[in-house]
Amino acid sequence: MAKKIVLSGMRPTGRLHLGNFAGALSNWIKLQNQTENQCLFMVADWHALTTDYEEPSKIESNIQEMVLDWLAVGLDPKKTIFFRQSWVKEHSELALILSMITPLSWLERNPTYKEQIVELEGKALSTHGFLGYPVLQAADILLYGATHVPVGEDQLPHLELTREIARRFNYLYKKSIFVEPQALLSHVPKVSGIDGRKMSKSYGNTIDISEEEELLKKKIKTMFTDPLKIKANDPGHPRACAENPKGCSVFSFHEIYEESKEKNHLREKSCKEGSLGCVQCKNELFQEMNQALKPLREKRDFFSKEKGEVNQILKSGSQLASSLAGKTLTSVREAIQYHEAL
Amino acid sequence: MAKKIVLSGMRPTGRLHLGNFAGALSNWIKLQNQTENQCLFMVADWHALTTDYEEPSKIESNIQEMVLDWLAVGLDPKKTIFFRQSWVKEHSELALILSMITPLSWLERNPTYKEQIVELEGKALSTHGFLGYPVLQAADILLYGATHVPVGEDQLPHLELTREIARRFNYLYKKSIFVEPQALLSHVPKVSGIDGRKMSKSYGNTIDISEEEELLKKKIKTMFTDPLKIKANDPGHPRACAENPKGCSVFSFHEIYEESKEKNHLREKSCKEGSLGCVQCKNELFQEMNQALKPLREKRDFFSKEKGEVNQILKSGSQLASSLAGKTLTSVREAIQYHEAL
Repeated sequence: MAKKIVLSGMRPTGRLHLGNFAGALSNWIKLQNQTENQCLFMVADWHALTTDYEEPSKIESNIQEMVLDWLAVGLDPKKTIFFRQSWVKEHSELALILSMITPLSWLERNPTYKEQIVELEGKALSTHGFLGYPVLQAADILLYGATHVPVGEDQLPHLELTREIARRFNYLYKKSIFVEPQALLSHVPKVSGIDGRKMSKSYGNTIDISEEEELLKKKIKTMFTDPLKIKANDPGHPRACAENPKGCSVFSFHEIYEESKEKNHLREKSCKEGSLGCVQCKNELFQEMNQALKPLREKRDFFSKEKGEVNQILKSGSQLASSLAGKTLTSVREAIQYHEAL
Repeated sequence: MAKKIVLSGMRPTGRLHLGNFAGALSNWIKLQNQTENQCLFMVADWHALTTDYEEPSKIESNIQEMVLDWLAVGLDPKKTIFFRQSWVKEHSELALILSMITPLSWLERNPTYKEQIVELEGKALSTHGFLGYPVLQAADILLYGATHVPVGEDQLPHLELTREIARRFNYLYKKSIFVEPQALLSHVPKVSGIDGRKMSKSYGNTIDISEEEELLKKKIKTMFTDPLKIKANDPGHPRACAENPKGCSVFSFHEIYEESKEKNHLREKSCKEGSLGCVQCKNELFQEMNQALKPLREKRDFFSKEKGEVNQILKSGSQLASSLAGKTLTSVREAIQYHEAL
């Protein structure tokens, strides 16, 4: 049976945090380790430029940091193709071709387009490139004949646009050049930041995958807990509190990192009874998290000491990606009857 | 002194006609033969796709025919770089980068954009690619550091957009990467078609540069003349007539092809006196034009018999163009701080 081809990408935002891990990386690891899949993971650096063109100076180091985190969590370039979008020249060429057949109305009705313009206020995003973001994304996916694309629910309209562009191309040129990719809908669990809000770089409430021991301890100390539990022996309410109905941050992390569910039930009980104070509870969380993150830190350190390793991984991955993408582009050129130089 | 770098391009519309010759090629020949210029002439096949994406099957043969005409009129790949846009991968990549920094409003206010959408009715032109036409054009020009671009007055807004994009890039990245090209405004003489209207493929009134002898004779026979001159000895009015104030087509061609101005003054006199009939006048025009076009036809025949010659010329020109464009792209990537694969 032919393998499923799974493509996913990430904008290089720098060091990844536990929200990124739960939201995407943990799923990528699962997909990578299923033998029926051939995965391709893309550093979406052209996409980064659509929003960061006014200040692109950090993109390069963000790529390094992000890929080190990929390696740290166990993504493996021996099983999976890691590549950098801007190093595979076929992306811009296919994006140009697809832009010719993509009606403006399809892009203008894209729900995330106007949302993002509002959300990222202060950035001048009414550009031709930003409007064409979904066209570039279609090129990313279609170049590899990706059969499956892991997405969250909010990205479904983008994937639908890719499918529409694929259909339109196949229809116009009367050939089945492009595969219509299927969504792999993944449940994206909400991970709280240290302040109880959703973990997000823009809130400054993150814990990084590679968080150093001392900083991890500090961050856990400042974590938001039940505001009614002031003294250690006040009865607490880990799942709901007066100000934040989403619960105590410390408890939500225990739910991820505590070694067993039983132990955590006991913890909940002790908190409610007032026999477990927040300081002790946080100390225990630090122990758990530090133990979980230590091997990732070590793996990351290992790779970051190998000078040029990330570059080398992306380079060979991009060469491989380029040879795959090149085949698709040859079919595309045949379909539109544009010869290559002989 | 550094050479002027002159870039110009043509959409591959197939065999060229005498209107194309007077409007562009004669100027290209002049530019090519001025030793202070390094000219690059581009087959704008990506641009052709912006409007012909629904039916691109003729583009490939149109390229062959057009370049044969370039050769026929004396454009010389030994002096000038002929290249094919889609064979120089740097065009799509720079276009993608420039699209990130180009505000939509600049493109939407482009006067030719909405005009063309109206003019080319029946074609679905509200596409992302068609809107981005001037961005691609900017990439074409800026990739070669073109200092001069020959344009007609109607294309000045496009060139101004290229200059604006160049300035914006240099400003954003605080480097003088791009040269702002100057317009080489050329007088585009109006050439009448055989029906007296402007010569244009869409009117079906053209005489091709490579028109065969027999067809040339036929077309001249059907040429529009003064409708008041019915019999040979009716007095005619070669410069103005009742129905078409722009004049008799035959006479306007004599003005181009008659060997001397004196002879043409005599011709005008004889026509007005009624001593020269239209049939004779047309026969004489055929002799003149056939003599002028014969060497072009022969040259064209020579090149068209060399199988693969056009392909070879475009291939080596595109390789040369690509090496020039590659240098610019390297500077561009440095400016936006995107590394190449090492």
